[in-house]
Amino acid sequence: VLCDISLEDAQEIVLQKISVVTGEDVNVFDAAGRIIAEDIFANEDLPRYPQSAVDGFALGDSLAKTDSTYRILEYLGLSDWPRYQLKQGEAAGVLTGGIIPDGTRAVVPHEKTLIQGNRLSVLEQVKPGNNIKQIGEDFKQEELLVACGTRIDSGCAGVLAAYGLCQVPVFRQPRVTIISLGANVVPCWQKPLPGQTRDCNSALLAALIKQYGGVLYSVKLANGMNSSDRKSYIDKIIGEVDLIICTGETYTKEMNSAPSFPFAEEIGAEVNYYGIRIQPGSHNGAAFYKGCPIFALSGNPAACAVGFHLLVAPALRAMQGQSPYPRYLRARCTNDFAKKVLRSRRFVRGHARYSSEGWEVTILPKQKPSMVRSLISCNALIDLTPEQLPITKGTEVSVLLLESLF
Amino acid sequence: VLCDISLEDAQEIVLQKISVVTGEDVNVFDAAGRIIAEDIFANEDLPRYPQSAVDGFALGDSLAKTDSTYRILEYLGLSDWPRYQLKQGEAAGVLTGGIIPDGTRAVVPHEKTLIQGNRLSVLEQVKPGNNIKQIGEDFKQEELLVACGTRIDSGCAGVLAAYGLCQVPVFRQPRVTIISLGANVVPCWQKPLPGQTRDCNSALLAALIKQYGGVLYSVKLANGMNSSDRKSYIDKIIGEVDLIICTGETYTKEMNSAPSFPFAEEIGAEVNYYGIRIQPGSHNGAAFYKGCPIFALSGNPAACAVGFHLLVAPALRAMQGQSPYPRYLRARCTNDFAKKVLRSRRFVRGHARYSSEGWEVTILPKQKPSMVRSLISCNALIDLTPEQLPITKGTEVSVLLLESLF
Repeated sequence: VLCDISLEDAQEIVLQKISVVTGEDVNVFDAAGRIIAEDIFANEDLPRYPQSAVDGFALGDSLAKTDSTYRILEYLGLSDWPRYQLKQGEAAGVLTGGIIPDGTRAVVPHEKTLIQGNRLSVLEQVKPGNNIKQIGEDFKQEELLVACGTRIDSGCAGVLAAYGLCQVPVFRQPRVTIISLGANVVPCWQKPLPGQTRDCNSALLAALIKQYGGVLYSVKLANGMNSSDRKSYIDKIIGEVDLIICTGETYTKEMNSAPSFPFAEEIGAEVNYYGIRIQPGSHNGAAFYKGCPIFALSGNPAACAVGFHLLVAPALRAMQGQSPYPRYLRARCTNDFAKKVLRSRRFVRGHARYSSEGWEVTILPKQKPSMVRSLISCNALIDLTPEQLPITKGTEVSVLLLESLF
Repeated sequence: VLCDISLEDAQEIVLQKISVVTGEDVNVFDAAGRIIAEDIFANEDLPRYPQSAVDGFALGDSLAKTDSTYRILEYLGLSDWPRYQLKQGEAAGVLTGGIIPDGTRAVVPHEKTLIQGNRLSVLEQVKPGNNIKQIGEDFKQEELLVACGTRIDSGCAGVLAAYGLCQVPVFRQPRVTIISLGANVVPCWQKPLPGQTRDCNSALLAALIKQYGGVLYSVKLANGMNSSDRKSYIDKIIGEVDLIICTGETYTKEMNSAPSFPFAEEIGAEVNYYGIRIQPGSHNGAAFYKGCPIFALSGNPAACAVGFHLLVAPALRAMQGQSPYPRYLRARCTNDFAKKVLRSRRFVRGHARYSSEGWEVTILPKQKPSMVRSLISCNALIDLTPEQLPITKGTEVSVLLLESLF
């Protein structure tokens, strides 16, 4: 078992063993936020026929002369498909989106015309091509519409619907189980006795799982379960879940023993690492059991959230065919952060925002790993090396921008 | 009916008539992304008891002397609640999160101690308060935890769960109906005949409704319905839905007649405005029917999306107790945009991103309102006045940053 490794090593060890989840089809009306599982190509031109962009008249030749007159052949309906050639001096009434006849040099909006019987006078200078939607002007047949790994937003949903792709191939949402191992942890709906703690990590993790495209499969509090109960539970869900997160009690209570991941050992999982050279992070670990990654995160809420962002989120993204790593940016710090004796890189909770001057980040108060407060309005982790400390206001720091839910 | 009004007037006319939707309770595990409908206050201190932050020993007095020794009174379990006073020279074994005895000056981690029977030697300098989680250090009783109107993220969910708020009071998701009025529009799963168009706006709008916290109530294609069918449909759903969006065919085909909102007039709704002095926007309108806002948006997909962001999104946000308007920022344009003869302000689709140099925005290709392509990777609208055009690369422009789904 690797102990006390770097963050990057910890991430890579797991990512090398992660495979992409299978796909499923979802209705295009429900597809927003899901990840496309295939490259999607245009199977035809869009539009398929030359159309009018306005309500008005398709004109044959002899454009560009003010007050030029045309003979109106007919008024086309939206469903009409004119099969004739528009000639010099001829016009046809057309509606927005309607197919225009061959030979149309331009379409003129009706408010720029005068009509007398079947004689049409055009009141403006018209340029060839005006108000015509050409075949394939939006997309050409065989063009790539949406690439595999794209998160479906409104524009993407519109394009898929325009091509009739009502059942959209997406990656299945990875199913995640949370196991709270703390012996003094009670469900959040229960009034804790003195010495007990409400399980706030599971609600926190449930939101993060949703944010990163996963779906909560189950939440299990191991409080009161013995070792064999816990193994039975894992054996029951394994194969159904794609990822397991354990919180709390993940590290040995024995003095002078090496850090370990006792729960993973207990169920017979292959432990990949335990303990990372970051703060918080000494309780973070990873194991694989029957192909399923199991992460150990701290029972302290702030440490648990940081561990999720740095270790679990990349795995969830990779499972959905996405680039695993988050965005880093440089930001000016708006406040001081007192020096701490640190041996290792530290991830501090912050609130980042942009202004006309660029990015700035505020280090949030109450940074103890046991506190939940620093997670309120936290949208960034500040990646600090021991050499950078103390931070004074105005210092430029490296910031990992967290994905926001909205 | 107000015609050809400013964007700001159009927004305000509707917002003044919008009321907040009712609330409902959701489970904290499902609450991510929802909007809190009440101010939530701490009903007790967190933590409620002074706790240890590490596994180790709670120490009585006489700190700060290396190699000072203590008598170990007992090893406390996590559920124990020690009711005695720790005195000079006394120590008690404690676990992370466990309640510490009164009189504890500091807690020392076990790896910094030596134990011989019931004698404890401390191997490091200890400062008063070290490794103690004080009562209320995270939150104090009666403090505001989460303000009404806050979107629930992971940190917020964690705080609510820590306080046992498992049923979270949130605003109900506004229910939205989409009515596609175009006579040549067919469902997106249907192969269009020549002259027909697949309904791509409804899928586009469904994603936008989700993004802005609403929920799709129904999608109705009015193709083939007569005026009385359409009125019956509205009368059936009114009272159930919070907002109605009509797309396409919203404006009179008669030449020289004033622009209007015929569908709203047909059902007897009070029309508030029709036509806005922006591009695209001449087809945008709003009406109220029995207290329900009805928006008219263009049938052209890009114009439809712009209309949603500028007019419908503020209404949806206001219904959920949120500040209605989006964020504006200044960005450097990375490409040229050819001059167009414009009478009015124009909203151009763009892709904004930040770099170490600040914000930049790329004007996306194919800006015709009828095209869907410019909605691909569109995360910003660029707000251009006629005086600003043409735009040359490097020009600073005003950008409305769109909410992203993730």
